[in-house]
Amino acid sequence: MKLEEKLQEISDLINERMDDLLPSISEGVKGERRIAEAMRYTAMSGGKRLRPFLVVASADLFGVSRSSSLQVAAAVEFLHAYSLIHDDLPSMDNDDMRRGQPSSHIKFDEATAILAGDALLTLVFEVISHPTTHSDAIVRSDLVQTIAQAGGTHGLIGGQMMDMLSEGQELPLPEISRLQRMKTGALFALSCELGAIMGKASRHCRNALRGFANDVGLAFQIADDLMDAEGLSSKAGKKTGKDALAGKATFVTALGIEKAKKQAQMLVEQAGKHLDVFDHRADVLREFASFVVNRQR
Amino acid sequence: MKLEEKLQEISDLINERMDDLLPSISEGVKGERRIAEAMRYTAMSGGKRLRPFLVVASADLFGVSRSSSLQVAAAVEFLHAYSLIHDDLPSMDNDDMRRGQPSSHIKFDEATAILAGDALLTLVFEVISHPTTHSDAIVRSDLVQTIAQAGGTHGLIGGQMMDMLSEGQELPLPEISRLQRMKTGALFALSCELGAIMGKASRHCRNALRGFANDVGLAFQIADDLMDAEGLSSKAGKKTGKDALAGKATFVTALGIEKAKKQAQMLVEQAGKHLDVFDHRADVLREFASFVVNRQR
Repeated sequence: MKLEEKLQEISDLINERMDDLLPSISEGVKGERRIAEAMRYTAMSGGKRLRPFLVVASADLFGVSRSSSLQVAAAVEFLHAYSLIHDDLPSMDNDDMRRGQPSSHIKFDEATAILAGDALLTLVFEVISHPTTHSDAIVRSDLVQTIAQAGGTHGLIGGQMMDMLSEGQELPLPEISRLQRMKTGALFALSCELGAIMGKASRHCRNALRGFANDVGLAFQIADDLMDAEGLSSKAGKKTGKDALAGKATFVTALGIEKAKKQAQMLVEQAGKHLDVFDHRADVLREFASFVVNRQR
Repeated sequence: MKLEEKLQEISDLINERMDDLLPSISEGVKGERRIAEAMRYTAMSGGKRLRPFLVVASADLFGVSRSSSLQVAAAVEFLHAYSLIHDDLPSMDNDDMRRGQPSSHIKFDEATAILAGDALLTLVFEVISHPTTHSDAIVRSDLVQTIAQAGGTHGLIGGQMMDMLSEGQELPLPEISRLQRMKTGALFALSCELGAIMGKASRHCRNALRGFANDVGLAFQIADDLMDAEGLSSKAGKKTGKDALAGKATFVTALGIEKAKKQAQMLVEQAGKHLDVFDHRADVLREFASFVVNRQR
Protein backbone atom coordinates (compact mmCIF):
# COMPACT_ATOMS: atom_id res chain seq x y z
CA MET A 1 0.00 0.00 0.00
CA LYS A 2 1.29 3.46 -0.81
CA LEU A 3 1.92 5.85 2.08
CA GLU A 4 -0.85 8.23 0.99
CA GLU A 5 -3.37 5.39 1.08
CA LYS A 6 -2.12 4.22 4.44
CA LEU A 7 -2.36 7.77 5.79
CA GLN A 8 -5.92 7.99 4.54
CA GLU A 9 -6.89 4.65 6.02
CA ILE A 10 -5.50 5.46 9.45
CA SER A 11 -6.89 8.98 9.28
CA ASP A 12 -10.40 7.58 8.71
CA LEU A 13 -10.07 5.25 11.69
CA ILE A 14 -8.79 8.07 13.89
CA ASN A 15 -11.65 10.35 12.89
CA GLU A 16 -14.11 7.62 13.75
CA ARG A 17 -12.54 7.13 17.16
CA MET A 18 -12.39 10.89 17.83
CA ASP A 19 -16.06 11.13 16.98
CA ASP A 20 -16.80 8.37 19.52
CA LEU A 21 -14.76 10.04 22.25
CA LEU A 22 -15.95 13.64 21.87
CA PRO A 23 -18.99 14.68 23.91
CA SER A 24 -22.31 14.70 22.10
CA ILE A 25 -23.74 18.02 20.92
CA SER A 26 -27.26 16.91 21.76
CA GLU A 27 -26.84 15.90 25.41
CA GLY A 28 -26.65 17.91 28.60
CA VAL A 29 -27.52 21.54 29.30
CA LYS A 30 -26.92 24.40 26.89
CA GLY A 31 -23.42 25.10 28.24
CA GLU A 32 -22.30 21.52 27.74
CA ARG A 33 -23.75 21.37 24.25
CA ARG A 34 -22.03 24.57 23.20
CA ILE A 35 -18.65 23.36 24.46
CA ALA A 36 -19.16 20.03 22.69
CA GLU A 37 -19.99 21.86 19.47
CA ALA A 38 -16.86 24.01 19.68
CA MET A 39 -14.65 21.03 20.56
CA ARG A 40 -15.94 19.16 17.54
CA TYR A 41 -15.73 22.17 15.24
CA THR A 42 -11.94 22.34 15.56
CA ALA A 43 -11.05 18.74 16.33
CA MET A 44 -13.08 17.35 13.41
CA SER A 45 -12.24 20.10 10.91
CA GLY A 46 -9.85 18.05 8.84
CA GLY A 47 -6.12 18.22 9.16
CA LYS A 48 -3.84 15.48 8.00
CA ARG A 49 -3.73 13.57 11.33
CA LEU A 50 0.04 13.32 11.05
CA ARG A 51 0.67 13.11 14.79
CA PRO A 52 -1.92 10.36 15.39
CA PHE A 53 -0.46 8.50 12.42
CA LEU A 54 2.93 8.55 14.17
CA VAL A 55 1.33 7.11 17.31
CA VAL A 56 -0.23 4.23 15.38
CA ALA A 57 2.83 3.54 13.19
CA SER A 58 5.12 3.51 16.25
CA ALA A 59 2.78 1.30 18.24
CA ASP A 60 2.58 -1.08 15.25
CA LEU A 61 6.34 -1.69 15.59
CA PHE A 62 5.64 -3.38 18.92
CA GLY A 63 2.45 -5.22 17.99
CA VAL A 64 0.15 -3.00 20.05
CA SER A 65 -3.57 -3.56 19.39
CA ARG A 66 -5.17 -1.06 17.04
CA SER A 67 -7.89 -0.42 19.57
CA SER A 68 -5.31 0.89 22.06
CA SER A 69 -3.23 2.82 19.59
CA LEU A 70 -6.22 4.56 18.00
CA GLN A 71 -7.42 5.66 21.43
CA VAL A 72 -4.04 7.23 22.27
CA ALA A 73 -3.78 8.65 18.74
CA ALA A 74 -7.15 10.36 19.16
CA ALA A 75 -5.98 11.85 22.47
CA VAL A 76 -2.86 13.27 20.79
CA GLU A 77 -5.05 14.89 18.15
CA PHE A 78 -7.21 16.43 20.91
CA LEU A 79 -4.02 17.86 22.43
CA HIS A 80 -3.08 19.28 19.04
CA ALA A 81 -6.57 20.75 18.53
CA TYR A 82 -6.48 22.43 21.95
CA SER A 83 -3.14 24.05 21.15
CA LEU A 84 -4.43 25.29 17.78
CA ILE A 85 -7.50 26.90 19.37
CA HIS A 86 -5.53 28.67 22.08
CA ASP A 87 -2.65 29.69 19.77
CA ASP A 88 -5.12 31.28 17.33
CA LEU A 89 -6.70 33.53 20.00
CA PRO A 90 -6.53 37.31 19.48
CA SER A 91 -4.16 37.78 22.42
CA MET A 92 -1.87 35.06 21.02
CA ASP A 93 -1.17 34.67 17.28
CA ASN A 94 -4.48 36.34 16.32
CA ASP A 95 -5.24 33.98 13.44
CA ASP A 96 -8.74 34.29 11.97
CA MET A 97 -8.44 31.23 9.75
CA ARG A 98 -7.47 27.65 10.44
CA ARG A 99 -7.64 24.72 8.04
CA GLY A 100 -9.51 26.93 5.60
CA GLN A 101 -12.29 27.80 8.06
CA PRO A 102 -12.86 30.60 10.57
CA SER A 103 -10.89 29.95 13.78
CA SER A 104 -12.80 28.90 16.87
CA HIS A 105 -12.99 32.39 18.43
CA ILE A 106 -14.36 33.78 15.14
CA LYS A 107 -16.91 31.01 14.62
CA PHE A 108 -17.99 31.11 18.29
CA ASP A 109 -16.48 33.73 20.59
CA GLU A 110 -13.34 34.08 22.67
CA ALA A 111 -14.79 32.67 25.87
CA THR A 112 -16.11 29.60 24.09
CA ALA A 113 -12.80 29.08 22.30
CA ILE A 114 -10.83 29.26 25.56
CA LEU A 115 -13.20 26.81 27.24
CA ALA A 116 -13.27 24.45 24.25
CA GLY A 117 -9.46 24.36 24.33
CA ASP A 118 -9.52 23.68 28.07
CA ALA A 119 -12.07 20.92 27.52
CA LEU A 120 -10.01 19.26 24.79
CA LEU A 121 -6.91 19.34 27.02
CA THR A 122 -8.91 17.81 29.86
CA LEU A 123 -10.40 15.19 27.53
CA VAL A 124 -6.88 14.05 26.61
CA PHE A 125 -6.31 12.85 30.14
CA GLU A 126 -9.79 11.42 30.56
CA VAL A 127 -9.26 9.30 27.45
CA ILE A 128 -5.74 8.18 28.33
CA SER A 129 -6.58 7.16 31.90
CA HIS A 130 -9.63 5.14 30.87
CA PRO A 131 -9.14 1.40 31.46
CA THR A 132 -10.09 0.61 27.85
CA THR A 133 -7.03 2.50 26.60
CA HIS A 134 -4.58 -0.07 27.93
CA SER A 135 -5.07 -2.99 30.27
CA ASP A 136 -1.95 -2.15 32.28
CA ALA A 137 -2.46 0.80 34.65
CA ILE A 138 1.30 1.38 34.84
CA VAL A 139 1.27 1.99 31.10
CA ARG A 140 -1.73 4.33 31.38
CA SER A 141 -0.05 6.28 34.14
CA ASP A 142 3.19 6.50 32.14
CA LEU A 143 1.24 7.75 29.10
CA VAL A 144 -0.37 10.49 31.21
CA GLN A 145 3.00 11.50 32.66
CA THR A 146 4.66 11.65 29.25
CA ILE A 147 1.86 13.68 27.65
CA ALA A 148 1.75 16.14 30.57
CA GLN A 149 5.49 16.71 30.32
CA ALA A 150 5.47 17.22 26.56
CA GLY A 151 2.44 19.52 26.78
CA GLY A 152 3.64 21.57 29.73
CA THR A 153 5.94 24.41 30.65
CA HIS A 154 9.00 22.72 29.16
CA GLY A 155 7.19 21.65 25.99
CA LEU A 156 4.22 22.95 24.05
CA ILE A 157 3.24 25.76 26.43
CA GLY A 158 6.75 27.04 27.10
CA GLY A 159 7.35 26.96 23.35
CA GLN A 160 4.27 29.05 22.62
CA MET A 161 5.26 31.59 25.29
CA MET A 162 8.77 31.76 23.84
CA ASP A 163 7.31 32.17 20.36
CA MET A 164 5.28 35.14 21.55
CA LEU A 165 8.18 36.74 23.39
CA SER A 166 10.33 36.39 20.28
CA GLU A 167 8.01 38.35 17.97
CA GLY A 168 9.87 41.20 16.32
CA GLN A 169 13.22 39.83 17.48
CA GLU A 170 15.98 38.27 15.45
CA LEU A 171 16.69 35.00 17.16
CA PRO A 172 19.93 33.12 16.61
CA LEU A 173 19.50 29.73 14.90
CA PRO A 174 20.04 27.60 18.04
CA GLU A 175 17.20 29.45 19.77
CA ILE A 176 14.89 28.97 16.79
CA SER A 177 15.72 25.26 16.88
CA ARG A 178 14.95 25.11 20.55
CA LEU A 179 11.67 26.99 20.15
CA GLN A 180 10.54 24.70 17.35
CA ARG A 181 11.65 21.62 19.24
CA MET A 182 9.43 22.74 22.11
CA LYS A 183 6.45 23.50 19.89
CA THR A 184 6.20 21.16 16.92
CA GLY A 185 8.98 18.80 17.96
CA ALA A 186 7.40 18.12 21.34
CA LEU A 187 4.21 16.74 19.78
CA PHE A 188 5.99 14.69 17.11
CA ALA A 189 8.39 13.17 19.63
CA LEU A 190 5.51 12.61 22.02
CA SER A 191 3.51 10.75 19.39
CA CYS A 192 6.30 8.27 18.69
CA GLU A 193 7.14 7.87 22.34
CA LEU A 194 3.54 7.03 23.24
CA GLY A 195 3.61 4.20 20.71
CA ALA A 196 6.76 2.88 22.38
CA ILE A 197 5.26 3.16 25.87
CA MET A 198 2.13 1.25 24.83
CA GLY A 199 4.39 -1.44 23.42
CA LYS A 200 6.53 -1.55 26.57
CA ALA A 201 9.53 -0.92 24.35
CA SER A 202 13.10 -0.95 25.65
CA ARG A 203 14.70 2.36 26.58
CA HIS A 204 16.89 1.97 23.49
CA CYS A 205 13.91 1.68 21.11
CA ARG A 206 12.10 4.49 22.86
CA ASN A 207 15.08 6.81 22.43
CA ALA A 208 15.50 5.80 18.80
CA LEU A 209 11.88 6.79 18.11
CA ARG A 210 12.30 10.07 19.98
CA GLY A 211 15.40 10.88 17.96
CA PHE A 212 13.57 10.10 14.74
CA ALA A 213 10.56 12.20 15.72
CA ASN A 214 12.62 15.19 16.83
CA ASP A 215 14.27 15.36 13.43
CA VAL A 216 11.01 14.84 11.57
CA GLY A 217 9.34 17.50 13.72
CA LEU A 218 11.99 20.06 12.83
CA ALA A 219 11.86 19.09 9.15
CA PHE A 220 8.08 19.45 9.23
CA GLN A 221 8.34 22.90 10.79
CA ILE A 222 10.83 24.06 8.16
CA ALA A 223 8.46 22.81 5.44
CA ASP A 224 5.67 24.76 7.12
CA ASP A 225 7.79 27.91 7.29
CA LEU A 226 8.64 27.45 3.60
CA MET A 227 4.95 27.21 2.73
CA ASP A 228 4.33 30.42 4.64
CA ALA A 229 7.25 32.20 2.97
CA GLU A 230 6.36 30.98 -0.52
CA GLY A 231 2.75 31.96 0.03
CA LEU A 232 1.11 28.62 -0.65
CA SER A 233 -1.96 29.80 1.15
CA SER A 234 -4.33 27.18 -0.24
CA LYS A 235 -2.09 24.30 0.85
CA ALA A 236 -1.46 25.82 4.26
CA GLY A 237 -5.19 26.45 4.84
CA LYS A 238 -4.38 29.67 6.63
CA LYS A 239 -3.11 33.15 5.81
CA THR A 240 0.50 32.97 4.61
CA GLY A 241 3.30 35.50 4.77
CA LYS A 242 2.14 36.08 8.34
CA ASP A 243 5.44 35.08 9.93
CA ALA A 244 7.32 37.77 8.05
CA LEU A 245 4.64 40.35 8.84
CA ALA A 246 4.70 39.44 12.52
CA GLY A 247 8.49 39.58 12.46
CA LYS A 248 8.61 35.99 13.63
CA ALA A 249 11.91 34.25 13.71
CA THR A 250 11.74 31.09 11.57
CA PHE A 251 14.27 28.82 9.91
CA VAL A 252 13.46 30.52 6.63
CA THR A 253 14.09 34.03 7.91
CA ALA A 254 17.33 32.84 9.49
CA LEU A 255 18.64 30.64 6.66
CA GLY A 256 16.95 31.84 3.48
CA ILE A 257 14.72 29.62 1.33
CA GLU A 258 17.37 27.51 -0.38
CA LYS A 259 19.37 26.65 2.71
CA ALA A 260 16.18 25.92 4.63
CA LYS A 261 15.14 23.40 1.95
CA LYS A 262 18.52 21.68 2.19
CA GLN A 263 18.31 21.63 5.96
CA ALA A 264 14.91 19.93 5.81
CA GLN A 265 16.21 17.24 3.45
CA MET A 266 19.24 16.69 5.67
CA LEU A 267 16.96 16.25 8.68
CA VAL A 268 14.86 13.64 6.87
CA GLU A 269 17.98 11.56 6.15
CA GLN A 270 19.19 11.97 9.71
CA ALA A 271 15.74 10.96 11.00
CA GLY A 272 15.85 7.73 9.02
CA LYS A 273 19.18 6.71 10.55
CA HIS A 274 17.66 6.63 14.03
CA LEU A 275 15.42 3.81 12.82
CA ASP A 276 18.19 1.35 11.91
CA VAL A 277 17.36 -0.73 14.98
CA PHE A 278 13.93 -1.52 13.47
CA ASP A 279 15.29 -2.41 9.98
CA HIS A 280 12.59 -2.71 7.27
CA ARG A 281 9.75 -2.80 9.76
CA ALA A 282 10.14 0.98 10.11
CA ASP A 283 9.91 1.68 6.38
CA VAL A 284 6.54 3.33 6.79
CA LEU A 285 8.08 5.82 9.23
CA ARG A 286 10.94 6.52 6.80
CA GLU A 287 8.45 7.17 4.02
CA PHE A 288 6.47 9.37 6.37
CA ALA A 289 9.53 11.53 7.06
CA SER A 290 10.08 12.30 3.44
CA PHE A 291 6.34 12.76 2.87
CA VAL A 292 5.95 15.54 5.47
CA VAL A 293 8.75 17.54 3.92
CA ASN A 294 7.68 17.15 0.31
CA ARG A 295 3.91 17.32 0.82
CA GLN A 296 3.48 20.84 -0.58
CA ARG A 297 5.41 20.40 -3.78
CA MET B 1 -6.81 21.31 68.02
CA LYS B 2 -9.33 23.87 66.81
CA LEU B 3 -10.44 23.75 63.20
CA GLU B 4 -8.83 27.10 62.38
CA GLU B 5 -5.47 25.85 63.64
CA LYS B 6 -5.84 22.62 61.74
CA LEU B 7 -6.72 24.51 58.57
CA GLN B 8 -3.65 26.67 59.04
CA GLU B 9 -1.38 23.70 59.67
CA ILE B 10 -2.56 21.81 56.58
CA SER B 11 -2.54 24.98 54.51
CA ASP B 12 1.15 25.52 55.36
CA LEU B 13 2.02 21.97 54.37
CA ILE B 14 0.09 22.32 51.11
CA ASN B 15 1.82 25.58 50.25
CA GLU B 16 5.17 23.94 50.84
CA ARG B 17 4.27 21.05 48.56
CA MET B 18 2.89 23.37 45.86
CA ASP B 19 6.11 25.34 45.97
CA ASP B 20 8.08 22.10 45.44
CA LEU B 21 5.91 21.01 42.52
CA LEU B 22 5.69 24.30 40.60
CA PRO B 23 8.39 24.94 37.98
CA SER B 24 11.27 27.18 39.04
CA ILE B 25 11.28 30.82 37.88
CA SER B 26 15.05 30.76 37.44
CA GLU B 27 15.42 27.75 35.13
CA GLY B 28 14.91 27.30 31.40
CA VAL B 29 14.52 29.87 28.65
CA LYS B 30 12.68 33.17 29.00
CA GLY B 31 9.33 31.67 27.93
CA GLU B 32 9.50 28.92 30.53
CA ARG B 33 10.50 31.36 33.27
CA ARG B 34 7.64 33.71 32.46
CA ILE B 35 5.08 30.89 32.55
CA ALA B 36 6.52 29.66 35.84
CA GLU B 37 6.26 33.16 37.29
CA ALA B 38 2.63 33.51 36.24
CA MET B 39 1.74 30.03 37.52
CA ARG B 40 3.24 30.85 40.89
CA TYR B 41 1.70 34.33 41.01
CA THR B 42 -1.84 32.94 41.11
CA ALA B 43 -1.30 29.53 42.69
CA MET B 44 0.74 30.92 45.59
CA SER B 45 -1.31 34.10 46.12
CA GLY B 46 -3.07 32.96 49.26
CA GLY B 47 -6.53 31.55 49.34
CA LYS B 48 -7.82 29.42 52.14
CA ARG B 49 -6.87 26.08 50.58
CA LEU B 50 -10.32 24.71 51.39
CA ARG B 51 -10.36 22.16 48.58
CA PRO B 52 -6.94 20.70 49.38
CA PHE B 53 -7.98 20.55 53.03
CA LEU B 54 -10.93 18.38 51.99
CA VAL B 55 -8.57 16.06 50.11
CA VAL B 56 -6.33 15.62 53.15
CA ALA B 57 -9.18 15.30 55.66
CA SER B 58 -10.94 12.70 53.50
CA ALA B 59 -7.75 10.74 52.89
CA ASP B 60 -7.08 10.80 56.66
CA LEU B 61 -10.31 8.84 57.19
CA PHE B 62 -8.67 5.91 55.40
CA GLY B 63 -5.18 6.20 56.83
CA VAL B 64 -3.59 7.46 53.60
CA SER B 65 -0.03 8.74 54.01
CA ARG B 66 0.31 12.51 54.27
CA SER B 67 2.91 12.47 51.54
CA SER B 68 0.34 11.08 49.09
CA SER B 69 -2.56 13.20 50.20
CA LEU B 70 -0.59 16.46 50.12
CA GLN B 71 0.53 15.69 46.58
CA VAL B 72 -3.05 15.18 45.40
CA ALA B 73 -4.21 18.17 47.44
CA ALA B 74 -1.64 20.37 45.73
CA ALA B 75 -2.85 19.13 42.33
CA VAL B 76 -6.45 20.05 43.23
CA GLU B 77 -5.31 23.55 44.15
CA PHE B 78 -3.52 23.83 40.78
CA LEU B 79 -6.80 22.87 39.11
CA HIS B 80 -8.58 25.56 41.14
CA ALA B 81 -5.91 28.16 40.27
CA TYR B 82 -6.19 27.37 36.54
CA SER B 83 -9.96 27.84 36.66
CA LEU B 84 -9.59 31.17 38.49
CA ILE B 85 -7.12 32.51 35.92
CA HIS B 86 -9.26 31.55 32.94
CA ASP B 87 -12.55 32.62 34.55
CA ASP B 88 -11.12 36.08 35.29
CA LEU B 89 -10.12 36.74 31.66
CA PRO B 90 -11.69 39.75 29.90
CA SER B 91 -13.71 37.54 27.55
CA MET B 92 -15.04 35.56 30.53
CA ASP B 93 -15.97 37.19 33.85
CA ASN B 94 -13.60 40.13 33.25
CA ASP B 95 -12.41 40.35 36.85
CA ASP B 96 -9.45 42.66 37.46
CA MET B 97 -8.91 41.60 41.05
CA ARG B 98 -8.46 38.22 42.67
CA ARG B 99 -7.54 37.53 46.28
CA GLY B 100 -6.87 41.23 46.77
CA GLN B 101 -4.32 41.41 43.95
CA PRO B 102 -4.50 42.22 40.24
CA SER B 103 -5.71 39.18 38.27
CA SER B 104 -3.20 37.29 36.14
CA HIS B 105 -4.08 39.01 32.86
CA ILE B 106 -3.69 42.43 34.53
CA LYS B 107 -0.41 41.60 36.26
CA PHE B 108 0.99 39.92 33.11
CA ASP B 109 -1.06 39.99 29.92
CA GLU B 110 -3.85 37.92 28.40
CA ALA B 111 -1.62 35.54 26.46
CA THR B 112 0.48 34.79 29.52
CA ALA B 113 -2.62 34.29 31.66
CA ILE B 114 -4.13 31.83 29.17
CA LEU B 115 -0.87 29.89 28.95
CA ALA B 116 -0.32 29.91 32.72
CA GLY B 117 -3.81 28.46 33.16
CA ASP B 118 -3.09 25.81 30.54
CA ALA B 119 0.19 25.00 32.27
CA LEU B 120 -1.46 24.64 35.68
CA LEU B 121 -4.09 22.32 34.20
CA THR B 122 -1.36 20.25 32.57
CA LEU B 123 0.67 20.20 35.79
CA VAL B 124 -2.31 18.68 37.61
CA PHE B 125 -2.00 15.53 35.53
CA GLU B 126 1.78 15.48 35.61
CA VAL B 127 1.68 15.53 39.41
CA ILE B 128 -1.08 12.95 39.76
CA SER B 129 0.47 10.43 37.39
CA HIS B 130 3.89 10.61 39.00
CA PRO B 131 4.81 7.34 40.76
CA THR B 132 5.55 9.20 44.03
CA THR B 133 1.89 10.23 44.29
CA HIS B 134 0.70 6.70 45.00
CA SER B 135 2.47 3.37 44.74
CA ASP B 136 -0.51 1.73 43.01
CA ALA B 137 -0.80 2.69 39.33
CA ILE B 138 -4.48 1.66 39.29
CA VAL B 139 -5.10 4.32 41.94
CA ARG B 140 -3.11 6.93 40.01
CA SER B 141 -5.03 6.16 36.85
CA ASP B 142 -8.34 6.35 38.72
CA LEU B 143 -7.34 9.72 40.22
CA VAL B 144 -6.55 11.08 36.74
CA GLN B 145 -9.87 9.78 35.37
CA THR B 146 -11.87 11.30 38.23
CA ILE B 147 -10.17 14.70 38.01
CA ALA B 148 -10.59 14.85 34.23
CA GLN B 149 -14.30 14.10 34.54
CA ALA B 150 -14.90 16.67 37.26
CA GLY B 151 -12.88 19.29 35.41
CA GLY B 152 -14.36 18.66 31.98
CA THR B 153 -17.38 19.39 29.86
CA HIS B 154 -19.81 17.94 32.38
CA GLY B 155 -18.14 19.64 35.35
CA LEU B 156 -16.05 22.76 35.81
CA ILE B 157 -15.84 23.79 32.15
CA GLY B 158 -19.48 23.10 31.29
CA GLY B 159 -20.45 25.02 34.44
CA GLN B 160 -18.43 28.05 33.43
CA MET B 161 -19.93 28.01 29.93
CA MET B 162 -23.42 27.73 31.41
CA ASP B 163 -22.62 30.58 33.80
CA MET B 164 -21.66 32.80 30.89
CA LEU B 165 -24.69 31.87 28.81
CA SER B 166 -26.93 32.65 31.78
CA GLU B 167 -25.75 36.25 32.21
CA GLY B 168 -28.67 38.62 32.10
CA GLN B 169 -31.14 35.77 32.37
CA GLU B 170 -33.40 34.82 35.23
CA LEU B 171 -32.68 31.18 35.84
CA PRO B 172 -35.08 28.95 37.77
CA LEU B 173 -33.69 27.61 41.05
CA PRO B 174 -33.06 24.04 39.83
CA GLU B 175 -30.89 25.39 37.03
CA ILE B 176 -28.93 27.59 39.43
CA SER B 177 -28.38 24.52 41.60
CA ARG B 178 -27.18 22.56 38.63
CA LEU B 179 -24.86 25.33 37.50
CA GLN B 180 -23.33 25.68 40.94
CA ARG B 181 -23.03 21.94 41.32
CA MET B 182 -21.03 21.87 38.11
CA LYS B 183 -18.79 24.78 39.10
CA THR B 184 -18.10 24.87 42.83
CA GLY B 185 -19.72 21.57 43.69
CA ALA B 186 -17.61 19.66 41.18
CA LEU B 187 -14.36 20.68 42.87
CA PHE B 188 -15.60 20.10 46.41
CA ALA B 189 -16.99 16.68 45.56
CA LEU B 190 -13.85 15.89 43.61
CA SER B 191 -11.64 16.76 46.58
CA CYS B 192 -13.44 14.36 48.91
CA GLU B 193 -13.64 11.65 46.28
CA LEU B 194 -9.90 11.78 45.63
CA GLY B 195 -9.25 11.15 49.32
CA ALA B 196 -11.52 8.09 49.12
CA ILE B 197 -9.81 6.80 45.95
CA MET B 198 -6.36 7.12 47.51
CA GLY B 199 -7.68 5.16 50.50
CA LYS B 200 -9.26 2.49 48.28
CA ALA B 201 -12.52 3.18 50.08
CA SER B 202 -15.66 1.14 49.45
CA ARG B 203 -18.21 2.47 46.99
CA HIS B 204 -20.47 3.20 49.96
CA CYS B 205 -17.88 5.41 51.70
CA ARG B 206 -16.98 7.10 48.44
CA ASN B 207 -20.62 8.01 47.79
CA ALA B 208 -21.07 9.23 51.36
CA LEU B 209 -18.16 11.63 50.91
CA ARG B 210 -19.48 12.79 47.55
CA GLY B 211 -22.89 13.49 49.08
CA PHE B 212 -21.29 15.43 51.90
CA ALA B 213 -19.13 17.45 49.52
CA ASN B 214 -21.96 18.28 47.13
CA ASP B 215 -23.96 19.81 49.98
CA VAL B 216 -20.96 21.66 51.39
CA GLY B 217 -20.09 22.94 47.94
CA LEU B 218 -23.56 24.37 47.46
CA ALA B 219 -23.54 25.87 50.97
CA PHE B 220 -20.15 27.43 50.25
CA GLN B 221 -21.43 28.94 47.02
CA ILE B 222 -24.44 30.45 48.75
CA ALA B 223 -22.13 31.94 51.40
CA ASP B 224 -20.02 33.37 48.58
CA ASP B 225 -23.07 34.83 46.86
CA LEU B 226 -24.14 36.35 50.20
CA MET B 227 -20.72 37.97 50.60
CA ASP B 228 -21.07 39.40 47.13
CA ALA B 229 -24.59 40.65 47.79
CA GLU B 230 -23.73 42.10 51.19
CA GLY B 231 -20.65 43.75 49.75
CA LEU B 232 -18.04 42.27 52.06
CA SER B 233 -15.38 43.17 49.55
CA SER B 234 -12.42 42.92 51.90
CA LYS B 235 -13.36 39.37 52.95
CA ALA B 236 -14.07 38.29 49.41
CA GLY B 237 -10.78 39.76 48.12
CA LYS B 238 -12.44 40.77 44.90
CA LYS B 239 -14.94 43.32 43.67
CA THR B 240 -18.35 42.65 45.19
CA GLY B 241 -21.83 43.40 43.94
CA LYS B 242 -20.56 42.18 40.59
CA ASP B 243 -23.07 39.38 40.26
CA ALA B 244 -25.99 41.78 40.44
CA LEU B 245 -24.32 44.16 37.98
CA ALA B 246 -23.63 41.33 35.56
CA GLY B 247 -27.21 40.15 35.98
CA LYS B 248 -25.91 36.79 37.14
CA ALA B 249 -28.35 34.28 38.49
CA THR B 250 -27.35 33.29 42.03
CA PHE B 251 -29.10 31.70 44.98
CA VAL B 252 -29.33 35.14 46.56
CA THR B 253 -30.99 36.74 43.55
CA ALA B 254 -33.41 33.82 43.35
CA LEU B 255 -34.18 33.39 47.08
CA GLY B 256 -33.39 36.71 48.71
CA ILE B 257 -30.80 37.11 51.49
CA GLU B 258 -32.74 35.63 54.41
CA LYS B 259 -33.94 32.50 52.66
CA ALA B 260 -30.48 31.98 51.16
CA LYS B 261 -28.95 32.06 54.66
CA LYS B 262 -31.43 29.48 55.87
CA GLN B 263 -30.78 27.31 52.84
CA ALA B 264 -27.04 27.36 53.55
CA GLN B 265 -27.58 26.28 57.16
CA MET B 266 -29.92 23.53 56.06
CA LEU B 267 -27.31 22.26 53.61
CA VAL B 268 -24.67 22.16 56.35
CA GLU B 269 -26.89 19.95 58.50
CA GLN B 270 -27.74 17.74 55.54
CA ALA B 271 -24.05 17.47 54.68
CA GLY B 272 -23.25 16.21 58.16
CA LYS B 273 -25.78 13.40 57.91
CA HIS B 274 -23.93 11.85 54.98
CA LEU B 275 -21.01 11.28 57.32
CA ASP B 276 -22.80 9.01 59.81
CA VAL B 277 -20.92 6.01 58.42
CA PHE B 278 -17.64 7.49 59.69
CA ASP B 279 -19.00 8.40 63.19
CA HIS B 280 -16.72 10.70 65.22
CA ARG B 281 -13.75 10.18 62.91
CA ALA B 282 -15.43 12.62 60.51
CA ASP B 283 -15.87 15.39 63.08
CA VAL B 284 -13.29 17.56 61.38
CA LEU B 285 -15.34 17.42 58.16
CA ARG B 286 -18.52 18.34 60.07
CA GLU B 287 -16.76 21.32 61.63
CA PHE B 288 -15.43 22.25 58.22
CA ALA B 289 -18.95 22.36 56.77
CA SER B 290 -20.14 24.84 59.32
CA PHE B 291 -16.92 26.84 59.04
CA VAL B 292 -17.23 27.47 55.29
CA VAL B 293 -20.71 28.87 55.72
CA ASN B 294 -20.00 31.06 58.71
CA ARG B 295 -16.51 32.18 57.75
CA GLN B 296 -17.49 35.72 56.81
CA ARG B 297 -19.49 36.60 59.89
